[in-house]
Amino acid sequence: MKTGSFNELLPYLDRYMALGTAMSIMDWDANTAAPEEASEYTAKVLGILSQERFCTLINPSVKEIMGRIDEESLSDKEKAIFKKLKKEYEKSETIPADEMREFGELCSRANRVWQKAKQENDFSIYAPYLKKLIAYKKKFATYAKKGEEKLYDILLDEYEETFGMKELDRFFGKLKAEIIPLLKRISEAEEIDDSFFYQDYEIEKQKEWNHFLAEYMGFDFKRGVIAESEHPFTTSWHNHDVRITTHYYKNNLTSAILSTIHEGGHALYEQGVDDSLTQTMVGEGASCAMHESQSRFYENSLGRSEEFWVPLYPKLVETFPKQLMDVPLEKFVCALNKVKADFIRTEADELTYCLHIMVRYEMEKLMIEEDTPVEELPELWKQKYKEYLGIVPENDTQGILQDVHWSMGDIGYFPSYALGNAFAAQIYNTMKKDLPVEELLRQGKISVITEYLREHIHQYGASKEPRQLLKDLTGEEFNPDYYIQYLKEKFEKVYHL
Amino acid sequence: MKTGSFNELLPYLDRYMALGTAMSIMDWDANTAAPEEASEYTAKVLGILSQERFCTLINPSVKEIMGRIDEESLSDKEKAIFKKLKKEYEKSETIPADEMREFGELCSRANRVWQKAKQENDFSIYAPYLKKLIAYKKKFATYAKKGEEKLYDILLDEYEETFGMKELDRFFGKLKAEIIPLLKRISEAEEIDDSFFYQDYEIEKQKEWNHFLAEYMGFDFKRGVIAESEHPFTTSWHNHDVRITTHYYKNNLTSAILSTIHEGGHALYEQGVDDSLTQTMVGEGASCAMHESQSRFYENSLGRSEEFWVPLYPKLVETFPKQLMDVPLEKFVCALNKVKADFIRTEADELTYCLHIMVRYEMEKLMIEEDTPVEELPELWKQKYKEYLGIVPENDTQGILQDVHWSMGDIGYFPSYALGNAFAAQIYNTMKKDLPVEELLRQGKISVITEYLREHIHQYGASKEPRQLLKDLTGEEFNPDYYIQYLKEKFEKVYHL
Repeated sequence: MKTGSFNELLPYLDRYMALGTAMSIMDWDANTAAPEEASEYTAKVLGILSQERFCTLINPSVKEIMGRIDEESLSDKEKAIFKKLKKEYEKSETIPADEMREFGELCSRANRVWQKAKQENDFSIYAPYLKKLIAYKKKFATYAKKGEEKLYDILLDEYEETFGMKELDRFFGKLKAEIIPLLKRISEAEEIDDSFFYQDYEIEKQKEWNHFLAEYMGFDFKRGVIAESEHPFTTSWHNHDVRITTHYYKNNLTSAILSTIHEGGHALYEQGVDDSLTQTMVGEGASCAMHESQSRFYENSLGRSEEFWVPLYPKLVETFPKQLMDVPLEKFVCALNKVKADFIRTEADELTYCLHIMVRYEMEKLMIEEDTPVEELPELWKQKYKEYLGIVPENDTQGILQDVHWSMGDIGYFPSYALGNAFAAQIYNTMKKDLPVEELLRQGKISVITEYLREHIHQYGASKEPRQLLKDLTGEEFNPDYYIQYLKEKFEKVYHL
Repeated sequence: MKTGSFNELLPYLDRYMALGTAMSIMDWDANTAAPEEASEYTAKVLGILSQERFCTLINPSVKEIMGRIDEESLSDKEKAIFKKLKKEYEKSETIPADEMREFGELCSRANRVWQKAKQENDFSIYAPYLKKLIAYKKKFATYAKKGEEKLYDILLDEYEETFGMKELDRFFGKLKAEIIPLLKRISEAEEIDDSFFYQDYEIEKQKEWNHFLAEYMGFDFKRGVIAESEHPFTTSWHNHDVRITTHYYKNNLTSAILSTIHEGGHALYEQGVDDSLTQTMVGEGASCAMHESQSRFYENSLGRSEEFWVPLYPKLVETFPKQLMDVPLEKFVCALNKVKADFIRTEADELTYCLHIMVRYEMEKLMIEEDTPVEELPELWKQKYKEYLGIVPENDTQGILQDVHWSMGDIGYFPSYALGNAFAAQIYNTMKKDLPVEELLRQGKISVITEYLREHIHQYGASKEPRQLLKDLTGEEFNPDYYIQYLKEKFEKVYHL
């Protein structure tokens, strides 16, 4: 007879949530506002909070209560939380609190050093930190290992449950077989002119425009904030405070626009989580990949379509008349879909994007499964870019130093970007049967589309698993073929192949 | 034989510090960035953290360790921390953790409602919150009461140790006797023209100028941030991250300038605390009044002097040529020292400032000692302004709703502003014997003055008590006569009396 009640867990879950929120706010602050020399001292605070948070969940009292709870007696919401708690518990139970604290401090420092290394194109100052980060991640994975599991599979599972190397190798294999030849055909086609994107676009006006754009998308400014940071990101303390950042470049109009739409997609997801779930362990997006499916759906499927721009483009021309007066809508949208192998993932076109991810996936396999020395990674990065994209970055700032993820201890995260694209294509395929998407966009009724996603995905937060969300919405299991089909159809049309 | 070691306390002190830092960051964020609808949800987080922080310090393990520590064996720094810990302990030990948590949540909500009430000039929506805040403060004071102590003395002691009603009544009595007659004589003298302060001053340019001014003062932007908020304030997570806010008004040049100098004075204090003390319980300013002595010294004794402006004024004229071209330095400085009874404390001139504080001191006595109903407070506020300053605020926004303090649960804080002024005058009196202050200012060498304050005050943080700092620097006990003498000499000169 199990005598435990779910309510006994609430004080622990609340503290865990509160400490997590505090850490997120400090992280947001570090990336948007904090002064240069604060990091060492603030890292100490983050390290302590990280350990506190860990101990709040991983302790004998929680374990004892969990042991007394009869899962069958729980409500659906409680079940979902309990499941997540158990997973979190199993995963972390093996990590000593001291090591977790050291790791938290290391991440905070590594992130600062990475910023400097990127700025100064100096991988060597970052290398010792990356080396330590890899060692920690491998050690943590080893602690969690059961039987014959591969360490990288364990890390992947942390970000996207049940999607391991076997499924990813197949997925990337398909992409490789279909997309590299398509990219080759495109590189032989006539180049699209997008030079007008790179004129002088006053930053203050860009800010205003992006603010307007976020509002148009449905980003609720009463429950959110937009700021600036080196690398755009989204963070959420609860469904009433969701924050995105962007980065403005004077000579690049679309970089900020596309990142606003992308992060805006993440934000709509978080703002759309049901009130009954927010501030619980299932009060956020279902997974990295499901999150990415939303951001990339807005960015690519909607944001790079002609219909999306029908109601918006006149206002953009009005804001930048000198630069865009002679650019018709069709030309603008065509340029948004220009394919060109280039170095920076976040600026990549929709087609080559997955190849950027593939490079990172393979790099992570090398780090974790092959023990490749950190010093060799920059060169390997360049080789892979040559092989898949046909280009070689001139320096590490444009190469291995471009992404923030590893510096924050996130190894195994990148593949979820590619999975997200695939989820998005599968969802879009069904949505088109249910809604006149293109017509709605033309009429400026993007809110109907967001409402559809809210109903089928956003509101559930993480109370349903990604595979379940996909199945409930599309009626079938995860199927990456929709993504490949979507890419081929779209870009054969764009390039008249 | 006492067997305890101070090091046993460190994990608890570190956690206490870390949670306090997190709460400060969230508070900063709430006042500078957070979206409108976030507060209810974020209040929940703050409430939990506040309780966590409380329990980190107030628990049987800490008490047990403290009981085993031989104070005589401690280093000076440890002694200072231990003393502060004991006081904190005694004060808080009596407050149940649940009540502390409720109080934390109440403050967060009350602060939001106060903002709205002030904006909409509607005391009635704020009144129930203020009533609850007073009730909590009285209850907490009652818990701490020993023998015949008055509740308000207990609250006062929380902000400025050992300065109770008896000393304050005497202090304000002296001010009343000397300053009200002086104010009367000034009101009969010829009015100073300061109309040029209230022209149109572009906000972007004001921001640039105030940024420059803070830098000139010695505010270290590598260890600090300036932002904007409704009510200017300073906050510090450690000596490497100190933040100030200001508020810009298009038709008021000096409001932002004087608040930058004022908050800059607070910030120099915090940035000047020694590295060995930061992130400990004595790693911040010695007390509210000592803090205020520094901010008001920079704002008034330096910032309103002609010598201060000698190196700066040409640049200000350069920034606002149209507005200031015809205003000579002497006229500018004379206008900075204009005395005019007005409604807003933070905009008050140096002479009437202490009368604003006197009103609040008497209001707090009514709230705590006389049980005056909250509903009657706005009217009493008006009566006191009439009696002391000869003016009656037209509405509550300009009256009782103007200050943030009560809404954050700070009742008993205001008197330390007046004490701070008195500390400043006493310190200035000694400093002038040690340094050629006016000559240094003329030469733009304000850093020498800051260095002097750093040496005698800032570096010690709270490891020395205010009375001790004063005595070590000036060679005598606290003596408010210097303040009254300073005010009389200065304003008789300004007004040629």
